[in-house]
Amino acid sequence: MSVTAAAGFEASGVAAGLKSTGKPDVAVVVNRGPSKAGAAVFTSNRAKANPILWSQQAVQDGIVEAVVLNSGGANCFTGAFGFQTTHQTAERAAELLGVSPGDVLVCSTGLIGTGDEVFRAKVLQGVGEGIAALAADGGDDASLAIMTTDSVPKRAVVTRGGWTIGGMAKGAGMLAPGLATMLVVITTDADLDAPALDAALRAATAITFDRLDSDGCMSTNDQVTLLASGASGIVPDEAEFGLALAELCQDLAQQLQADAEGASHDITIQVVHAASVADAVEVGRSVARNNLFKAAIFGNDPNWGRVLAAIGTTTASFDPYAVDVSFNGVRLCSDGAPDRPREEVDLTPRSTSVLIDLKAGDDEATILTNDLTHDYVHENSAYSS
Amino acid sequence: MSVTAAAGFEASGVAAGLKSTGKPDVAVVVNRGPSKAGAAVFTSNRAKANPILWSQQAVQDGIVEAVVLNSGGANCFTGAFGFQTTHQTAERAAELLGVSPGDVLVCSTGLIGTGDEVFRAKVLQGVGEGIAALAADGGDDASLAIMTTDSVPKRAVVTRGGWTIGGMAKGAGMLAPGLATMLVVITTDADLDAPALDAALRAATAITFDRLDSDGCMSTNDQVTLLASGASGIVPDEAEFGLALAELCQDLAQQLQADAEGASHDITIQVVHAASVADAVEVGRSVARNNLFKAAIFGNDPNWGRVLAAIGTTTASFDPYAVDVSFNGVRLCSDGAPDRPREEVDLTPRSTSVLIDLKAGDDEATILTNDLTHDYVHENSAYSS
Repeated sequence: MSVTAAAGFEASGVAAGLKSTGKPDVAVVVNRGPSKAGAAVFTSNRAKANPILWSQQAVQDGIVEAVVLNSGGANCFTGAFGFQTTHQTAERAAELLGVSPGDVLVCSTGLIGTGDEVFRAKVLQGVGEGIAALAADGGDDASLAIMTTDSVPKRAVVTRGGWTIGGMAKGAGMLAPGLATMLVVITTDADLDAPALDAALRAATAITFDRLDSDGCMSTNDQVTLLASGASGIVPDEAEFGLALAELCQDLAQQLQADAEGASHDITIQVVHAASVADAVEVGRSVARNNLFKAAIFGNDPNWGRVLAAIGTTTASFDPYAVDVSFNGVRLCSDGAPDRPREEVDLTPRSTSVLIDLKAGDDEATILTNDLTHDYVHENSAYSS
Repeated sequence: MSVTAAAGFEASGVAAGLKSTGKPDVAVVVNRGPSKAGAAVFTSNRAKANPILWSQQAVQDGIVEAVVLNSGGANCFTGAFGFQTTHQTAERAAELLGVSPGDVLVCSTGLIGTGDEVFRAKVLQGVGEGIAALAADGGDDASLAIMTTDSVPKRAVVTRGGWTIGGMAKGAGMLAPGLATMLVVITTDADLDAPALDAALRAATAITFDRLDSDGCMSTNDQVTLLASGASGIVPDEAEFGLALAELCQDLAQQLQADAEGASHDITIQVVHAASVADAVEVGRSVARNNLFKAAIFGNDPNWGRVLAAIGTTTASFDPYAVDVSFNGVRLCSDGAPDRPREEVDLTPRSTSVLIDLKAGDDEATILTNDLTHDYVHENSAYSS
């Protein structure tokens, strides 16, 4: 059910011809209220697509009536014409829904530089068809329409006492042809105002989506949107809501990791006993982005030396010669020197864990990543994109 | 001739059994004077191999009598035993040469975690054999003994009025199994003291080796050493010496790039009109380290969108929507929007140029890198290392 699991929402997914395959490529999610509170977080890339530039402004008043999403074109670096396309998309949806254009968010995903007249015409037509197709059980259709190289739709639902959070996501943890942007829409029938939603969303994404780092590349179009209808009539405890939201985001993040294009291992890098959470994140990310480490995992080689060489490039507080490194529960490096024989580690399962003990404090963080494979190179080189 | 092109040096390369192939794996370079001035620069990785820890101390007095280098084992993260091995290596060489151990530098390259009793015995034996084999024309042998996955030795010589600089290098621009450390030894018969050598070496490496960034991974063992014998009797103009040294370093850096393991393109990323050199370097490096960009070049896809997405992650001063990007002389992106059709770019030649015009100032920098290929993944995953 994804974005229509919570009461107060309608959604749809239609084929507007943006995808050469003829598959659905325009999704609409509408909040029927009674509340129209919304919040969103965006890519931190300075190179931002036109839908990002639009949505950043539109969300500022905390009111979001609808989200229009398209696959088949990123509408990024398409100049003033591209921004007008986004603007017209919001206007068309607003007109058909009888709301203000400034309360319609837009998300796009696909090839950078795509956003010409043909693209605009198809998107605008898709908006009309999508709004005509809106349904209270349309969440599944919507989740199909935002897929690009995803092999399966990503959906999650969390229910607590009387209220529900539902979400859909697209994107390959390991980025695919044309920058596989991560787009997420989350809806809830809990009754929370925009500042509460914003705080909960920032807190949840910081420890879930922001810690999924499949190949270190940052998209121009990433957007995670949270809408609240208040249709349950329940004002939840904010802490409880925050936990439930984080649980849902982590579920979707793990689905993204598991569907990463070309990956043969899902790698969980846990950094413990760090002097700060920021240190733990920096250390984990440095390993997740190290091509030599990632290629070694593809080759089922528990190469702890590459882990140490990667973390040695960080500014985190620790002594490189005191660190322990374990693969799948076997400590191969103790105090910066060889420990158990690497033959004791079996890296053939897809699920891989790396534990890095910095012995520098009490904080920790976990980064999710994937390995570097022949299929990754193939996916990102063989197709013109 | 490499390190024996300049007067006053002897060198050798011998097989001590560290390489399973039986190829030469220990090299010795000795300065016969009359001057014994030396300088060196080291990896900035905090995870430093034992030879780095030793050599950093040994070079501090500016006197270097000899350099001992081995392939077949990095002697990194091998604990106190590993450091003693490096110490004993310097002592053995010093004893046989009749010099102080503190004036002998040591370099190692190979798998991290390798440095046991067998390794030590072979290295010490190799030192003896290498010193026995020292010859005034031994530079070529030395350059062969430091090779790991290099397909060809890297040698360069620059001659000016009455003095010469010669050098040898090993390492794959694109790193290979076991972290293909970059080791470089440069010799000159010009008469310069250690502070002058140090200044010239830092200036030259900053714009040559430091701008070769094949896969973003930093070794634990990188070392570039410069020795001056003064045997020409000529004290060169320091500016002229600096230019000649930079020319030699650039020659060796380009040889490393051209021999990068698994690469099918040598990519020159030129960033112009930057607000500062640091900005230009940051922008160029962000592109050089972007896996999506690198995979696109492998696929002969001039994907300018991936260039903009990469530079958008930097903190450099520029407007992403004002940038021009050209591939092999064809401007595909102008003012952050599509310009010439990508079909006009032919990326089939190995030599690839990317020009990024930031329109933000008057500084520039050039970064050398390689593409991300199936062979890179194969080299770094298929072999246990």
